Amino acid sequence: LVGRAVQRAVHKHELPEGVFSLLFGSGREVGQALVADPRIKAVGFTGSRAGGTALMKTAQNRPEPIPVYAEMSSINPVFLLPEALKARGAALGEAFIGSLTMGAGQFCTNPGLVIAIEGPELDAFVAAAGETIKGAAAQTMLTPGIFEAYESGVSGFSASDKATEVARGQRGEGPNQCQAGLFTARAADFLADEALQAEIFGSTSLVVKCADLDEVKRVAEHLEGQLTATLQMDDADVDVARQLLPILERRAGRVMANGWPTGVEVCDAMVHGGPYPATSDSRTTSVGTAAIHRFLRPVCYQSLPQALLPEALRDGNPASVSRLVDGKREA
Amino acid sequence: LVGRAVQRAVHKHELPEGVFSLLFGSGREVGQALVADPRIKAVGFTGSRAGGTALMKTAQNRPEPIPVYAEMSSINPVFLLPEALKARGAALGEAFIGSLTMGAGQFCTNPGLVIAIEGPELDAFVAAAGETIKGAAAQTMLTPGIFEAYESGVSGFSASDKATEVARGQRGEGPNQCQAGLFTARAADFLADEALQAEIFGSTSLVVKCADLDEVKRVAEHLEGQLTATLQMDDADVDVARQLLPILERRAGRVMANGWPTGVEVCDAMVHGGPYPATSDSRTTSVGTAAIHRFLRPVCYQSLPQALLPEALRDGNPASVSRLVDGKREA
Repeated sequence: LVGRAVQRAVHKHELPEGVFSLLFGSGREVGQALVADPRIKAVGFTGSRAGGTALMKTAQNRPEPIPVYAEMSSINPVFLLPEALKARGAALGEAFIGSLTMGAGQFCTNPGLVIAIEGPELDAFVAAAGETIKGAAAQTMLTPGIFEAYESGVSGFSASDKATEVARGQRGEGPNQCQAGLFTARAADFLADEALQAEIFGSTSLVVKCADLDEVKRVAEHLEGQLTATLQMDDADVDVARQLLPILERRAGRVMANGWPTGVEVCDAMVHGGPYPATSDSRTTSVGTAAIHRFLRPVCYQSLPQALLPEALRDGNPASVSRLVDGKREA
Repeated sequence: LVGRAVQRAVHKHELPEGVFSLLFGSGREVGQALVADPRIKAVGFTGSRAGGTALMKTAQNRPEPIPVYAEMSSINPVFLLPEALKARGAALGEAFIGSLTMGAGQFCTNPGLVIAIEGPELDAFVAAAGETIKGAAAQTMLTPGIFEAYESGVSGFSASDKATEVARGQRGEGPNQCQAGLFTARAADFLADEALQAEIFGSTSLVVKCADLDEVKRVAEHLEGQLTATLQMDDADVDVARQLLPILERRAGRVMANGWPTGVEVCDAMVHGGPYPATSDSRTTSVGTAAIHRFLRPVCYQSLPQALLPEALRDGNPASVSRLVDGKREA
């Protein structure tokens, strides 16, 4: 239905035929056939880690390997630093649930992990978040497959003796409805148990309680690649933040302070990417003006006659592009 | 020996320890162990296609796959267009052998293939090139392995009933000396026989004789990815060049006119890369100032306090870098 609407818009605005295409298929058959076709020269993908790595393998095993830009998995850790937690723990708890439940938690930048030092301030944060999540309405997820994966992930948390349930959101009545969830775990258990570290795609998050700052750092160092890492911090937290930053900027494509990772501005400076497995290729962004670089490769035209050069490269700069000439930017 | 000299220069100029490292090993053991080590995050490599693809596989099979920039194989086709061939065939023949024999043919950009329409003008080119190559001195190659691969490649040409020997250079007297070679083949045979299309790393080149311009185009379309593609052309060849250009710019990282592919200027605009198998990753250059991008990934710092930002990103631009602000370049 959406595909047909886009197709109509393409015709109405006289955009070239083929600017939008849509192929439906269940499982990986259609995707793998496309990636294996020699006419395809690069791939962009958003989906599960298993699906993305399968496409990466297909692309690498072609006679001519091609780039795959797969956005696969991210739990987007949020670090609550001590002074911020003390000053505004309850408010942070409410805002956190707002970010967690947006779009049934189906944002790649959904905050799936909160990390902080244990104590009464963190208890206040968890209590406020728990109260808020109880009021969170159930929301329909995109596909039955996504819903089933979500349910299975949450069941794993419920069944684990290492994770403690704080609260659940409202139960859904229709099919494929995501019931929000909030759990806590001790940092030592989190570090020891890979099941607690896996992404649950949907509105469920885990609060990791650390004994001290050293344990916060150990958790940060233990994390896989992420799209985002967030610091909730006040001025007095700058020194603590400075200790975490070298760890976080090696693990995420976007490091932010005092916001929530969901919700991005699509602009020139944006980065929507991150180290593996957040994406298969951390050298690029999948959104924003710089995203086009994923599908380009440089070509040098050496000593070609003006008549054969692309307009943007001709003498006198007829296309008025911003250019480097002998390493200096043209005015 | 060279490694020790570089090491001394590093100390003398007080460069950081570790800025230069050298590990020796035969076979692929050392290379594969390095690529498999989780502390390694990206790989640059120059060598054979078999070696490069082995490293690509190792890198992809790591728990955390990493980028591999392998420069592997290129035969750098040179196209002699009709008017240029008519006006200066003999001079082109001599200059060609100069490029072919430079450094015992051990440049990644060595012209291993010449493509032109058959006729008396091409015969004159081949005759001049043949005379010149006879005087070419034998030169010692870098390693016994490279020499053996060269000898085996040339033997394949000699044994083939599809390739005709024009002339050989002087025979060497010392070990591992490369004897230059020039062969011709008909385009139809070249297209049908993969052995004729393989790279011979060293001073041997093949002239492919085409029946007409359509056959020149078919040969161009049939080529694998290359570092360079060269047009020898006069003003009256512009229309022919315009027909070839869309094919060549899809197959090479550097398209040049009226030069020889060996010899590059290391500058901001240079591209030393090309479609697979010239390199494993055509999105980058391995030489020139842009080469550093191969080892970078973008990180977005969103709303971070000034004190935590890298100097280059702080308000007032204290590091005086050329920056985009809201999509406009700062003066």
